[in-house]
This record gives sequence, C-alpha cells and structure tokens, in this order.
Amino acid sequence: MSTSPYAQLEQEWRRLHAFHGALALLRWDAAVMMPRGSADVRGEQLAALETEHHALLTAPRITRLLDRAQANAQGLEDWQLANLREMRRQRDHAIATPVSLISRLARATSRAEVRWAEARRQNNFDLFAPHLEEVLNLVRDKAALLGQALGLPPHDALVDEFSPGVSTADIEAIFKALSRRLPSLIRETLALQAQRPSMPLTGKFAPGKQRALVVEVMRSIGFPFDRGRLDESEHPFTEGVPGDIRITTRFDNADLFSGLLGALHETGHAMYDLGLPQSWRDQPVGRDRGMALEESQSLLLEMIVGRSRAFVRYLRPQLEKHFAVSGPEWELENLYRRLTHVQRSLIRVDADELTYPLHILVRYEIEKKLLSGELAVRELPEAWDAGMEQRLEVRPTGAADGCLQDIHWALGSFGYFPSYALGAVIAAQLWESLRSHIPEIDEQIGRGEFGGLFDWLREQVHSLGAKVSVKELMKHASGQPLSANALLRYLEAKYLEPAS
Amino acid sequence: MSTSPYAQLEQEWRRLHAFHGALALLRWDAAVMMPRGSADVRGEQLAALETEHHALLTAPRITRLLDRAQANAQGLEDWQLANLREMRRQRDHAIATPVSLISRLARATSRAEVRWAEARRQNNFDLFAPHLEEVLNLVRDKAALLGQALGLPPHDALVDEFSPGVSTADIEAIFKALSRRLPSLIRETLALQAQRPSMPLTGKFAPGKQRALVVEVMRSIGFPFDRGRLDESEHPFTEGVPGDIRITTRFDNADLFSGLLGALHETGHAMYDLGLPQSWRDQPVGRDRGMALEESQSLLLEMIVGRSRAFVRYLRPQLEKHFAVSGPEWELENLYRRLTHVQRSLIRVDADELTYPLHILVRYEIEKKLLSGELAVRELPEAWDAGMEQRLEVRPTGAADGCLQDIHWALGSFGYFPSYALGAVIAAQLWESLRSHIPEIDEQIGRGEFGGLFDWLREQVHSLGAKVSVKELMKHASGQPLSANALLRYLEAKYLEPAS
Repeated sequence: MSTSPYAQLEQEWRRLHAFHGALALLRWDAAVMMPRGSADVRGEQLAALETEHHALLTAPRITRLLDRAQANAQGLEDWQLANLREMRRQRDHAIATPVSLISRLARATSRAEVRWAEARRQNNFDLFAPHLEEVLNLVRDKAALLGQALGLPPHDALVDEFSPGVSTADIEAIFKALSRRLPSLIRETLALQAQRPSMPLTGKFAPGKQRALVVEVMRSIGFPFDRGRLDESEHPFTEGVPGDIRITTRFDNADLFSGLLGALHETGHAMYDLGLPQSWRDQPVGRDRGMALEESQSLLLEMIVGRSRAFVRYLRPQLEKHFAVSGPEWELENLYRRLTHVQRSLIRVDADELTYPLHILVRYEIEKKLLSGELAVRELPEAWDAGMEQRLEVRPTGAADGCLQDIHWALGSFGYFPSYALGAVIAAQLWESLRSHIPEIDEQIGRGEFGGLFDWLREQVHSLGAKVSVKELMKHASGQPLSANALLRYLEAKYLEPAS
Repeated sequence: MSTSPYAQLEQEWRRLHAFHGALALLRWDAAVMMPRGSADVRGEQLAALETEHHALLTAPRITRLLDRAQANAQGLEDWQLANLREMRRQRDHAIATPVSLISRLARATSRAEVRWAEARRQNNFDLFAPHLEEVLNLVRDKAALLGQALGLPPHDALVDEFSPGVSTADIEAIFKALSRRLPSLIRETLALQAQRPSMPLTGKFAPGKQRALVVEVMRSIGFPFDRGRLDESEHPFTEGVPGDIRITTRFDNADLFSGLLGALHETGHAMYDLGLPQSWRDQPVGRDRGMALEESQSLLLEMIVGRSRAFVRYLRPQLEKHFAVSGPEWELENLYRRLTHVQRSLIRVDADELTYPLHILVRYEIEKKLLSGELAVRELPEAWDAGMEQRLEVRPTGAADGCLQDIHWALGSFGYFPSYALGAVIAAQLWESLRSHIPEIDEQIGRGEFGGLFDWLREQVHSLGAKVSVKELMKHASGQPLSANALLRYLEAKYLEPAS
C-alpha cells in the first residue's frame, strides 16, 4: 500500500466519512426515534462529533498533505485529481469559519429555532425578530469570511456551500427568464383548468395501508430495503450514507397522495445517493454534487415522473389493490388532474410545480437584501407580503402563513433557497434529454418499469459524484448550458396541453 | 470558570462522554433499526469513533493533566477525588492495550462471531475451534499487558474490567460457598416441587398486547418514556446514556412471561443508569460501578421482585385487563409456582435463579484454565460436558446446547461470566437489607408501588455512581461484607418454603 501524501489524504477522509455517517445517524434518530426529553443529550453528542470533525478537517497535517499532494499531482488520475480538488474545497470551507463563530452560530440558531416555532404558533413576528437579527449578524460574518477565503462576494459564498460552482449571476439569469414567463403561464393554466373541473378524492386512508402502498412503489423504483429504511417524521427527509440510506414521509389520513409524493421526493434523493460511485463512497469526490442537484433528483421523481399520465397508469391498479377504490373520481384522467392541479397559494411546501419557483424568487430577493443590510429585519413581514402580492397575487393573512412559514433563516441557512428553484430547472433539462434518448420512457413508467429511467440518470448524473461541476454535468448530460428553457418548455407542454 | 488541570480534565471527559453516547446509539441502532445489509458501513463508523475515543483518552495531554491534577489534589473534594481516580483508571486500562492489539482483537472477534454462529447452527465445535484459538491468544496478550499495568494476575486484570475491585479470590470464596450448598438445595427443591404440581399457562399472546402490558408495568416502575424507549431485538439489552436510555425485549407468542421478564431485567439496568448522580453524568465517577453491580440491579427486578408473590398480586389484574385470562391456572398460587419453577437444564439464559450460579461456575472454571493454558481449546467440549454433569447432573447432547451456547468467548469477553453470579449475590444481599429497612415492601409491590424500592436503591446504590468500590458499597448498604450468605438465605427461604 502506497503512503504517498495523496494516499494518506484518502485515509484521513475515510475517517472523516465515518464521522459524517455517524453524525447522519444521530440526526436521523433525533427526528425519528429519539424520546422527546433527550434533545439536550443529543445536542451535546452532535456538538462533540461536529467539533471533532471540524478539528480533523482543519488540522495542519491536512494542509501539509494537500500541498504535498498538489505538488505531486502529475502522478494522479482524473478521479484522484477531482478528489484532491474536493478535499481542498471541503477544507477551505471549514477553515474559513473559525470554530468560535461556528459554535456561536450553533447556539444562536438553536435558540432562534425554538423562538421561531413559538412565533409561528402565535402568528407573531416580533417574538422572532431579535433572534433572526442575531443569526443574521453571525451569518453576515460567516459570509464575509467565507467570501474572502473563496474569492467570492458574500452571498455567492453562501450559495457556493449548497450549489457549488453556481453563481448568483447564473441564478439571476434563471429567475429573470422564469419571472418573465411564469405569471402569464399561470394565468393561462388557471383559465384552462377552470374549463376542465376535477372531482376531489375523498375518503379515509389508513396510514398502515398507505405505508404498504408506498413500500410497493419504492420497491418497483428500486429502493433497496436491505440497505435503507422508510419511517415517519414530522417533515419528510433523507438522511444517511449510500450503504444505509433512510427516508421518511408523513401520512395524512384524509389525503392519499401527500404521503406518497413525500416518499417519492425522498426516494429521488435516496436513488441519487445510492447511485454515487461505489468505489469512491468514502471520499469527497464520491459525494453528491450539492443541494441543487440533490433537489433536481427528488423533484424529477416527485413532480415530473410522479405527476405524469404514465405514472398514473402504473399507480391506478396499485390504488385499487391497496384501497379498493372505485368510482369516476378514481379514473385515470381525474387522478391526473388532481395531481397536476395548479393554485396560487401562500405556503411553499404545498405549492404546485408551476407556482413554486415564484415562491423561491420572493425568498431569494429578500434574503439578498437582508444580508446586504438593504432590508432591516423589522421590515421583513411587509417586504414578504408585498413580494407575494407582486409575484403570486396572494397576500398572507399574517406572519404564520407569511414570512414565518419556513425554518431556513432561523437555522442560518441563507443561500439555500435558490437550490430549490435550480433543482426544478435541472430536473426539467435532464428530463428533456432523457426523453430524447429513451423515447419509450412513458411506456416503461406506465408498466412500473423504472430501470430505464435510473440507468440513464445513473450514467449521466449519479455515477459522476462530485467529479465535475453542476454546469459541466448539465452540458454533458443535456448537450446544453444550464438555463430555464427546458423547464419553461416542459411546463408549457404540460399545463397548456390542448383538451383531448 | 476555573482552568485548573482538574477542570480541564472534566472538560476532556465531557467530550469523551459524548463519544461514548454516540457509540451507544450506533450500537443500539445496529441491533434494533439498521437494515441488514448495512453492517459493513456501521462497522467502519464504530471503528472510527472507537479509535478516536481511544486516541483522545490516551493522549499525552491527558497523562500530563492527570499528573498535575494529582499533584494539586489537596484542593479537591471527595467526589472530585473519586472522579480523578476513575479518570486514571479509564486511562490506565486504555493505555495498557496498544491500538494495534485492540484492532487485531476487533478483527479476530468479528470473524470468530460469524464462525461461532455457524458452528452453533451446525452443532460442530471444530468449525469454531481455530477462531477461538486465535481470540484466546490475543486475549492472553491483553491480559498479560493489562495485568502488568495494573499490578494484577492476568485473569484478575480481565475481571477488573467488568467488576472493578473484585478479585478472583473474592469470586472463588463466593463460588465455594455456593457450590457447597446449592446442589443439595436443588435436590430438596425438586423434591418439594414434585409434591406441588403446577398447571401450564397456555395460549396465544399477541405481541402488541404483550407490549401494552409491558409498557404499563414499566410505567408503574417509573421508567421515563420521555427519556427512554422500549423496542424489540433478538436478544434483550439496555443501551444508551442516562438522558436517553433504551431497552429491548423479545416477545414470544406462546409465552406470556419471557417478554415481560426480559423487559423487567432490562428495566432494572435502566433504573440503575437513570439513578446515577445527575450532576456527574458526563464524568467517570457518574458511571455505573461495573457489570456485577449492573447485573445485581437487573436480577433484583427480574428474579427477586418479578418472581415474588407480591409482584404476582400486582400483576394478576394486569393480565386480566390485557389478556382477559381466567381459569384455575391463572390463580395467584399457580402463577407464582410457574414463575419460580426450578429445573436442571442445559441452557444458561433459560435457567432459574437456583441453578443459574452453577452454570456460571462451570464457565468460570473453564475460562481460567483456557487462559492459563491448562486446558487446550480442543479439550473444551469435553471439559464443558463433564462440568455440567458434575455441577448440574445434566449432559449436553452436543456443542450447540453445550459449550457453543454463549457468544462471550467468541467476542473475547473472558472475565465477564463471574459478574452474572456476583450480580445474584449482590442483589440478594441488597434485598435482605432493603427488607429490613422497609418492612412493608411486599405490600407496596403488591399494590404496584415501586417508589419505596427505588428510593432505597437510589440512595444506597444508584446515586453513588462509581464513587466507592463494590465492596465498600455493599458494606455500607447492607452492613455486611460481600458474601454468598444472603443469597443462600434468600434461596432457602423461597424454595424450601413449607406448604401453606
């Protein structure tokens, strides 16, 4: 076995990967299994492991090894070079933020999270404002330090954490294209929709049966239950490492689809993680290529596949089998209409794929202004309501269904929101290319065959890990630069479909 | 905040405690939640965290701080001094065994565990022998190194890991007393039992209902479900830290008591852990006082309380409520006879409290000879069978119900078995003292009131953590030195009870 500087770095990252996996399990357990009263204990465990992880990652030894490996880079192959680049990237991000700032931010956000939940329950922004102020000040410090270290403007530095290699200029070009077309597209869709009414899907759907349906669908998709789990939690999420991947969803007695679609979303994440290059699984280059790409894989399955006529054809017999549904509202066309119903609404997580990007745009514009100081925290509720009115023609009734609906800022996650919109853009662009390469994809999905879909995604996306940038990956997988064009084409075709 | 060497040590141990808790969760999850195919991933995570824990514990900085704190010990209080002693004890144990030996042992035992299971399934000792040989050689090295560092004979050094402060001389005095009286006591009991036949408790007992019963019993006992969990696993166990304690049991459709008694056993462990001194919970002195004392707390609840007439009075209405049982076999006296049924048997984990210590004695005598080399691995099956015949008058039909029944030696846990017998001895001695201090304890238990029981145990045992040795603790709690006398008195009174 070689003990070159590069080989030593791989060894170091094997250990970091084990810490990363242990931390993932501690978080999963906290959300799914942990008794309510044990949060303080878990907080100490997470803090200790995170601090140790940070210390291992920023040790002088790592810096020395990175420099020596770089100096001897001529002996390395493609993947090794990419791995070295990602190692340095992780280390640069970690070392830019001092431990003291990280721990102040951890304390401030854990206080803010509690007060955010309380403020939301009481529909009272004032309870949250001072805590957001505190978090925002620390995030500004972090953005400045990170920006300095990475040679990026502050907001770009934050975005880079979640969507590496995507600049705010890229994001703004995409938002510009979307905001130019979406408002009119929504109007046209709502007009068409009014002419084609659909029947509601009412009933009581026992969680146990919903779970059985979801498990069967996940099995068809290829989720490996011998290396993963499905559980329930308040908010659906995916956690773990490719050898032990765990997703959650939430079942609603009165709604057959929310649990299934939540599970599809998370299965999309899981399938991406499971498709990452196995031989690099404990190395940085074997990780996912950031949140925008993660979100593209979940949205592709939840929104594009899961709300397609082909999927409804596959799903219909499953519904009959698990729930013995019958009647006109359970016919294919009505199911499809319910799944693609469009509505101007106040809550992001309930939004359909047509209005969703505008929810993100409102947040993106506000977080940039908060970060730069152009907007004061106390002005946030009014800015939010005005943004919603301008972009979506709806006005929140209060802070709870307005600027307090999302937890992200309380957690200090500024720069995260754009990855949701980027995810939708990437998903549609990949889907367009996939369809041109697999013309029979609809027939396959209609038969419950997802092999073709995931073979293509694995080859073009998953198996690349973090080897290339998002923009390079898109160029390669779709033959086109990253842009909003495919998403707009997809939405127009789907929502302006002529009556059959 | 002081930064004295002692204060710095407390800070270091806070971190070690968080690692300890994270490791506990990783193990719990592996046994209860983890998908079967993820064992390799979990193995890497455990190894990485254990190695890091070991490195933190044996760092030169810790040695320096320990020496400096010792030199300034005059400023420390009782508890701090005891904590310092336990810190050093942990460090001495860790540093005595080099990482290379630990990792060779880890690899050898994980191979041996797999082959042990296979050999047991096939009832074929030869498949396991070479692996036990390998483990034994490494354990011998470990015992020699540990003995050297601690100034103890090799087997004593191993015992010291599980039952600190108890010597093999103590253990042998206890075994001598037990082996002098138990064989005749078993004969007398079996003769009496033959005159008082009992009716079997047959039926189908749905696991869901068994769980509801167990949860209700655990609540009465005082198990805090907001800081703990009950789950199912192949072998019952307790894992976690006092702020998040998790027990498991296993439900058998055809046996109403095995799941309940398993849960009582583990609840005994959990109540001990929960009663440890809260203000020292992240320090060595706040930990349990070793496996013998742990086992005393589980046996006290499972064997002494759980198989008492008082407990049966409390339990009887619960059985009626949860299972609507009726008929003569469910009357108090028959239930009590079934719960205290004695039988010469081959399998330790199914043994009653009367024959149990002899199962341990057989193992203790053999493991000492294996360790010293007096007995060769290939001679083990015959030595086992001869021991069982001599001590219990039963002879295994093969290795599966003979020397392959327990996993301990495959895992390298030599020196562990005595703690089971010590646990029974300690439990009876504590119980005798407790009854003299709380004469109405039976009435309390009969009413399902466990507060008196646990108040006493907390005051006399749990709240002391690792402050005093087992022998000092027993002297203080019972007024008597540790001996087998109380256990023999308890067993005689219970099993030779005159007919009413």
